[in-house]
Amino acid sequence: MLNKVELKIEQYIVSLEHAEIYRLYKMLPVGKRLRAKLITYIAGGDLESIKLAAIVEMIHAASLLHDDVIDDATVRRGRDSINAIYGNKTAIMLGDILYSKGFNELTKLDSKIADVISDAVIKLSIGELDDVNISKSFCIDKDQYIKMIYGKTASLMEASASSAAILAGKVYEKYAIYGKNLGIAFQMIDDLLDITATSDTLGKPALHDFKEGKTTLPYIYLYELLDDKDKIKLKNMHKKTLTASESSWVLEQMSNHNIPTICYNEAKVLVLEAMELMREEDEEKLYMIANEMIDREY
Amino acid sequence: MLNKVELKIEQYIVSLEHAEIYRLYKMLPVGKRLRAKLITYIAGGDLESIKLAAIVEMIHAASLLHDDVIDDATVRRGRDSINAIYGNKTAIMLGDILYSKGFNELTKLDSKIADVISDAVIKLSIGELDDVNISKSFCIDKDQYIKMIYGKTASLMEASASSAAILAGKVYEKYAIYGKNLGIAFQMIDDLLDITATSDTLGKPALHDFKEGKTTLPYIYLYELLDDKDKIKLKNMHKKTLTASESSWVLEQMSNHNIPTICYNEAKVLVLEAMELMREEDEEKLYMIANEMIDREY
Repeated sequence: MLNKVELKIEQYIVSLEHAEIYRLYKMLPVGKRLRAKLITYIAGGDLESIKLAAIVEMIHAASLLHDDVIDDATVRRGRDSINAIYGNKTAIMLGDILYSKGFNELTKLDSKIADVISDAVIKLSIGELDDVNISKSFCIDKDQYIKMIYGKTASLMEASASSAAILAGKVYEKYAIYGKNLGIAFQMIDDLLDITATSDTLGKPALHDFKEGKTTLPYIYLYELLDDKDKIKLKNMHKKTLTASESSWVLEQMSNHNIPTICYNEAKVLVLEAMELMREEDEEKLYMIANEMIDREY
Repeated sequence: MLNKVELKIEQYIVSLEHAEIYRLYKMLPVGKRLRAKLITYIAGGDLESIKLAAIVEMIHAASLLHDDVIDDATVRRGRDSINAIYGNKTAIMLGDILYSKGFNELTKLDSKIADVISDAVIKLSIGELDDVNISKSFCIDKDQYIKMIYGKTASLMEASASSAAILAGKVYEKYAIYGKNLGIAFQMIDDLLDITATSDTLGKPALHDFKEGKTTLPYIYLYELLDDKDKIKLKNMHKKTLTASESSWVLEQMSNHNIPTICYNEAKVLVLEAMELMREEDEEKLYMIANEMIDREY
């Protein structure tokens, strides 16, 4: 089914009749196509479902192109990013082209579905702005963090699942919660990996997020648990390149206060709720996607 | 009627419930609202027409935000541009938010109208890419230039006029040609002004376009008319900061070969066709908008 989605995206790109755009598009890494999986698992492999999946993946690719410019990211899924190779301008323009093509094809689907997806893109764009703004200062407001990752990461997954459910005539509320929980948990785990996953070059976690000003959930919880002196110490390290001993101190505090487990468990609660909903609906594949997310060490 | 459009845009922005976005939006210059004028003159002042005009102006504002980033422009309608004040990232993000809000509201209108407008945004985005690519080398392909300005400038005006005509149940083909011709002529005249309008700081035309690599219509025609030696001379000046004597030479050649008149007349033909179509339809206001465009010296 994913092959059909790839072919449909390719058709959409080819219909633009522009060799340069086709060439640039082919340079983008394909990724996990998680959103396309959700959509085709929920709504099946008929043409409308394949179109919806292709559109959502084009919109997702557009958002990543702009995200890499905004984050000054030079790598995307192990490859040099488009902005790293061709500069920010090309990444912005290619993103705009994929967005507008996606939106145009969306107007040809059911208007309720077009509304759900385009509304998610508003949330996604606002989430991007919030991410940048929150990173400007040491922010330990958990509600703000959750709202931001919901917009940035979960909104399009929520919309993918619920619009596919609408297409298939299923109970879309359950699928919406499934997509939303999966998206938030996915981002929580991604943020967690920044303090737990060993970097190849450093031999220990890179703590990139904190250096870039992002006070993700682990930092929010750690700050809560530190004593006043250490609170100030942590705050003073925000948005700085940490020395080896500073970074060891952060990791030690994270470990002492059991932060990885706390954060992992919080993500797990969301995923378990998502799994339970899919168990009720007999959606085995969707159940398994969620299960895989928590079925390994972080 | 334009007041109603401003109010509708403001409502759309307010509905995002985000103080920072509202503040940034209010910093954008309002501009001539040419597209909103076309739409409300064609489709009147009822709610659907006002919504369409507001959506198109939001999309247009989004495209200008990204355009300024891509052109490294620091000024927009006499004010510092958003990218100049807050950096490229904020301009990209605000553009994405206005685009996605515009698209989302578009899905709530008639699907034919949503298709026409979003298709124009594809052309607009591709036109932006073509503009950048063409500027990389000395390009004297007139067809390519016309195709590019059609995408970049005329496509959204064409779509504004034709979608408004669809809304009003009018003969949309004529309105489409009107909008397209107006847009192409508008860009041709804008490009002409770069070689004829006296710059405040320099006391003579700035020739910005050529320095930035843009071989607009005046350069395409001039190159055609120059002898072989001067062809090479002009080509060698492409994309460079011209000395005073080089820039005088270019202006002298433009004048000797009557380029401003040739280009102006070409734009005028398009505008006259647009005017004739509106005369047939008894559209006095639209006739006058076109007339004003050619009723002054360039």
